[in-house]
Amino acid sequence: MELFEDMTKPSRNQENGLLDPNRLFPVESRARGIAQMLFEEVEQLPIISPHGHTDPSWYAENKAFGNATDLIVKPDHYLLRMLVSQGMSLDDLGIPRNGATSETDPLQIWRLFAEHYHLFRGTPSRMWLDHTFSTLFGLDSPLGADTADQYYETINEQLARPEFLPRALFERFNIEVIATTESALDNLEYHDAILASDWNHRVVTTYRPDSVIDPDFEGFAGNVRKFGELTSSDTTSYSGYLDAHRIRRQYFRKRGATATDHGHPTSRTAALDVSEASALFEKVITGDHTDADAELFRAQMLTEMARISVEDGLVMQIHPGSWRNHSNEIMRDYGRDKGFDIPSPTNYVEALKPLLDEVGLEPNLTLILFTLDETAYSRELAPLAGAYPCLRLGPAWWFYDSPEGMMRYRQLVTETAGFYNTVGFNDDTRAFCSIPARHDMARRVDCAFLADYVARGLLRETEAVELAHDLAYGLAKKAYRL
Amino acid sequence: MELFEDMTKPSRNQENGLLDPNRLFPVESRARGIAQMLFEEVEQLPIISPHGHTDPSWYAENKAFGNATDLIVKPDHYLLRMLVSQGMSLDDLGIPRNGATSETDPLQIWRLFAEHYHLFRGTPSRMWLDHTFSTLFGLDSPLGADTADQYYETINEQLARPEFLPRALFERFNIEVIATTESALDNLEYHDAILASDWNHRVVTTYRPDSVIDPDFEGFAGNVRKFGELTSSDTTSYSGYLDAHRIRRQYFRKRGATATDHGHPTSRTAALDVSEASALFEKVITGDHTDADAELFRAQMLTEMARISVEDGLVMQIHPGSWRNHSNEIMRDYGRDKGFDIPSPTNYVEALKPLLDEVGLEPNLTLILFTLDETAYSRELAPLAGAYPCLRLGPAWWFYDSPEGMMRYRQLVTETAGFYNTVGFNDDTRAFCSIPARHDMARRVDCAFLADYVARGLLRETEAVELAHDLAYGLAKKAYRL
Amino acid sequence: MELFEDMTKPSRNQENGLLDPNRLFPVESRARGIAQMLFEEVEQLPIISPHGHTDPSWYAENKAFGNATDLIVKPDHYLLRMLVSQGMSLDDLGIPRNGATSETDPLQIWRLFAEHYHLFRGTPSRMWLDHTFSTLFGLDSPLGADTADQYYETINEQLARPEFLPRALFERFNIEVIATTESALDNLEYHDAILASDWNHRVVTTYRPDSVIDPDFEGFAGNVRKFGELTSSDTTSYSGYLDAHRIRRQYFRKRGATATDHGHPTSRTAALDVSEASALFEKVITGDHTDADAELFRAQMLTEMARISVEDGLVMQIHPGSWRNHSNEIMRDYGRDKGFDIPSPTNYVEALKPLLDEVGLEPNLTLILFTLDETAYSRELAPLAGAYPCLRLGPAWWFYDSPEGMMRYRQLVTETAGFYNTVGFNDDTRAFCSIPARHDMARRVDCAFLADYVARGLLRETEAVELAHDLAYGLAKKAYRL
Repeated sequence: MELFEDMTKPSRNQENGLLDPNRLFPVESRARGIAQMLFEEVEQLPIISPHGHTDPSWYAENKAFGNATDLIVKPDHYLLRMLVSQGMSLDDLGIPRNGATSETDPLQIWRLFAEHYHLFRGTPSRMWLDHTFSTLFGLDSPLGADTADQYYETINEQLARPEFLPRALFERFNIEVIATTESALDNLEYHDAILASDWNHRVVTTYRPDSVIDPDFEGFAGNVRKFGELTSSDTTSYSGYLDAHRIRRQYFRKRGATATDHGHPTSRTAALDVSEASALFEKVITGDHTDADAELFRAQMLTEMARISVEDGLVMQIHPGSWRNHSNEIMRDYGRDKGFDIPSPTNYVEALKPLLDEVGLEPNLTLILFTLDETAYSRELAPLAGAYPCLRLGPAWWFYDSPEGMMRYRQLVTETAGFYNTVGFNDDTRAFCSIPARHDMARRVDCAFLADYVARGLLRETEAVELAHDLAYGLAKKAYRL
Repeated sequence: MELFEDMTKPSRNQENGLLDPNRLFPVESRARGIAQMLFEEVEQLPIISPHGHTDPSWYAENKAFGNATDLIVKPDHYLLRMLVSQGMSLDDLGIPRNGATSETDPLQIWRLFAEHYHLFRGTPSRMWLDHTFSTLFGLDSPLGADTADQYYETINEQLARPEFLPRALFERFNIEVIATTESALDNLEYHDAILASDWNHRVVTTYRPDSVIDPDFEGFAGNVRKFGELTSSDTTSYSGYLDAHRIRRQYFRKRGATATDHGHPTSRTAALDVSEASALFEKVITGDHTDADAELFRAQMLTEMARISVEDGLVMQIHPGSWRNHSNEIMRDYGRDKGFDIPSPTNYVEALKPLLDEVGLEPNLTLILFTLDETAYSRELAPLAGAYPCLRLGPAWWFYDSPEGMMRYRQLVTETAGFYNTVGFNDDTRAFCSIPARHDMARRVDCAFLADYVARGLLRETEAVELAHDLAYGLAKKAYRL
Repeated sequence: MELFEDMTKPSRNQENGLLDPNRLFPVESRARGIAQMLFEEVEQLPIISPHGHTDPSWYAENKAFGNATDLIVKPDHYLLRMLVSQGMSLDDLGIPRNGATSETDPLQIWRLFAEHYHLFRGTPSRMWLDHTFSTLFGLDSPLGADTADQYYETINEQLARPEFLPRALFERFNIEVIATTESALDNLEYHDAILASDWNHRVVTTYRPDSVIDPDFEGFAGNVRKFGELTSSDTTSYSGYLDAHRIRRQYFRKRGATATDHGHPTSRTAALDVSEASALFEKVITGDHTDADAELFRAQMLTEMARISVEDGLVMQIHPGSWRNHSNEIMRDYGRDKGFDIPSPTNYVEALKPLLDEVGLEPNLTLILFTLDETAYSRELAPLAGAYPCLRLGPAWWFYDSPEGMMRYRQLVTETAGFYNTVGFNDDTRAFCSIPARHDMARRVDCAFLADYVARGLLRETEAVELAHDLAYGLAKKAYRL
């Protein structure tokens, strides 16, 4: 009976508050009932966050977050890009132009955001924000021009309280372990500070060597020189350079790292012989290289990183296919990460073959693949991950970390790769407050997917319960060796 | 109670007439109820038709349409292609071969069409036709071999009546404004005639300069010469040629044009400097050019058109990616537009970059993108339109102007670009009688999409009502500056 | 009332047995009811299997199948690939390395498979297997570590009985006609034996000439020599070589063949003139050719095969786009068909143009296209098949021969190509016991698709009944001229 009542009076909950308790579940009542049952099983599981971009200084220093605008609007490229797409300028939004300090009043920026909140209808940002507003800040009327100031005051007032300090939120969010991402050149001082502190929660780093691998990275040659100093290695030779990676990976492992991450423009790999690779290294390190050399060096280094992963057991992640900073003018005036990164078609079958022929059958290697090209899910990624033992598929990424995106991912991947060649959820965010909202969304969508399969006789309920646990918790922990 | 009755006795309406009153709505009763409510809000809104191919002489001359075959079958490439794909010849269908007059009896053609009407099951053509048969001509038993003659007589008899003249239909269809599409060389006499008449309804033109921009267009050099004469410009120089565009666009603007349209094979753009562009123009105008030159000239001209749009405020549309007249034999014997235009993979991220770096952040530019490559929706188009302020996404086009196609469009676009970077519906048709059917379909599919989002807690009902209005009416009017 | 009871107590059936009687049907009760009605209409129709890979010796010799492991696990690359992807080796699974005999105990392999049966959750393999276990072997508790031995014994015990001999199963499966696939060099002795026997069931062959068409095929030159001997043709000249095809196709036609099949890496076609083609043939036959020559020869031969099909009426099938044996190590150690064939992006619009300009409008040609690149469904394949009279679309193939895959196929293809440019279902399998399961799945998914269209007012029930018959039986029989 309760189910039926849910169905006939749904709008009451929904119109009176920000969150429908049955959000993202199937509409049909029997499937919805199954989804509710599955979600109850996993809703309270601890959060495993094996890949993300929160700032470790938050946990090390435990200082209060600033105001609503600085916490929620300005660092979120999802919000900036949508507002810019509808005619606001980055200046209006307080983003410094050419490094000059922006003096825009944060309350004015908040009001501008609130007035345009309808633009986010149908986007995951809207769902994450409403979840944060409702569950974290206790707000229950929709954000808009009329509620902008009330929101601003309520959020700021709460951010000043002790229970809103980063460590308190970490505990409240029920995070079992979170991974941050640091440059290979980072000294990891905040991770050291966390480890040395009496706060016993698990924050691990991730080895991200793009700045010393990508010849197109700003300051590449200097970075490699510094890399040599940090590791006491001779990074003027290829073998010394590879040793520097080995040494630095150990440094990261000691700060909890279980994984590396690689943000290349493509997923191309190569398997040059030592003399070819050494000659190529000589070119890129002296700056005497073409675009094709740079691409080949990145390709060669993916294979080298995979080989070292076989040795040291770090899980490898590849996040390819983003055309970073597509607008020259935005890049020139405002810099990186302002919402102008655009996906491109990405090939995996040809691109990964050199690496896979080298180490694709190694039992100790885990290589997690991501994509911004959804056409690769069923055509390339699921077939590859459903065959090569080293491969696993990362969750729906970036623009597809969304209800429709996650549902497409399951529909396109599962029949060929199954569930056990996937690795659970990544929140992949620097928006700390959105972490519970993101895991909530992912768990709900997975439960909706499983409920539909149960309702259509493709899975038994007992199997779906086990899978719901695995997708929400177990697979991430296992794949990332946490 | 009424809802429940609808659900238990659905086939009664459906089997007795041509149209299910709940067609295209979600099946589940609560979501269906929401869709019904939303559709009631928008069903009677006037039609905004900002892009299409109806013939302005119809409205200018207001002559009766001919018989059912000439009105419905022969001009509709959707119908011709399907019948040909199943073994009929274009001769059988009355299409003149090599310009010779076809002597096929229109009633015979109608009978052939009616006998094969089952081929259209599951296609949008079938829905548009049934809507037209039912709501316009009052027919209520299915078209087939047994009803062919009755249909033919009923339609022809009605077409002869005054209430079936073009202007009467325009009013009956509740069209607020319709845009036609004319070549840059067209003298727009029919638009002048409409403006000069006492019939006070809004028919506007659209500037389509393919014939003077595309070096591969039949008679290109002569077209450019005529273009110079029409505008009193020296179209032997690049600057004179660009001036001719400026002048001719003003001529179109005075006949109501608010937009331009560009049907290029690809979406490639370029930003050559003046001397390079002038040299290229010299090549293409003298016919001394390669295929690559022609492609580069088209690319350069998209950027020039965008620059002039910044000046004169005409909204720019790009319809790329059709391989026109794919069959040599069909083209040779029967000519263009006979259903053998086939989509091709289309890239936008790289192709549009030159234009976007020139004018992508201009506040006065609106550039509406279309695609025949659905893989670009979530990978390229939504990310681009969700960032660049000049970009908007045109509705699902051509083969995808269909229930499944429109639903995929919303599912793939909304989470990244939202609703407000889309521009409502285009009927894009030369089939005048199908216009109400096409808008009916689009409104129903959008209401179904919104209803599902409400039912799953992703939108509030009040928001969905506002969105339903915007998608059916407001966005088209605003985006096209009508 | 019965419908409603089904809906409220669904898990009873499902948890107590392996098969939900409503599996794959829509969840909502009205649509489910329509799907049930449609499925009742087609469930008992005979099986038409126009394309597959069962072994004709089974029907000719009628010997008992071996044990469960040899019948079900070892020959099924879907199973091998998933188990390998999760860390098992092909050695563990009894696959001979470097041709050496495997000494692995089949019961041990069966146990390994059973312990890992959860890996197949959500895959079509799981549904096919459960259907086989339940309907063929009468098993009704789930396969797992605890039931492995019971399964093994039950299956083996039954396989030894007369009613499990190949001919008995053929009759029990209600197969009206099955096509096998043989190399152009095969002597078709088993087909002769079947024809000569008193067993009056229809097993036909299919002409698969890859080994004498693809210059990259192992032993190509020798194959062509043997081809000449078999046909008493001079296969050292191009015209003699083409004659050999004509003669051999007749040999196959006499053993029931109605179709040819071509498994090229791409769908590229060519229309060289005779002297060019002869020169190219000279190159490839002497081994003095580049990769590009080999690709061009395969392309030319697709057009030649189409021309001969116009003469002899054999239906032509193209299965392009698989990157065969992607892992060098697996290929070297275990050989072909071990689950490491990976799809690649495939173009059809440009690739097929030469062939289509030659014979695309021929009334006597049927050319059935398949794809492993789902992006081609709506962008290329449906638009092509919805125009060219020779083209038909094969069903969802290989990785997409699955519930989600088949549903996507209908959703992406139908609106442009309709139902009548498709050809029903292919089981395309060497797993004999899975044939009823595969047709069951396809019929259910098609009924679910049609039911949804009826429930949403896009089709009338009477039309859906007719379509369900056509999709399950009529279209395959007609398209393959069986």
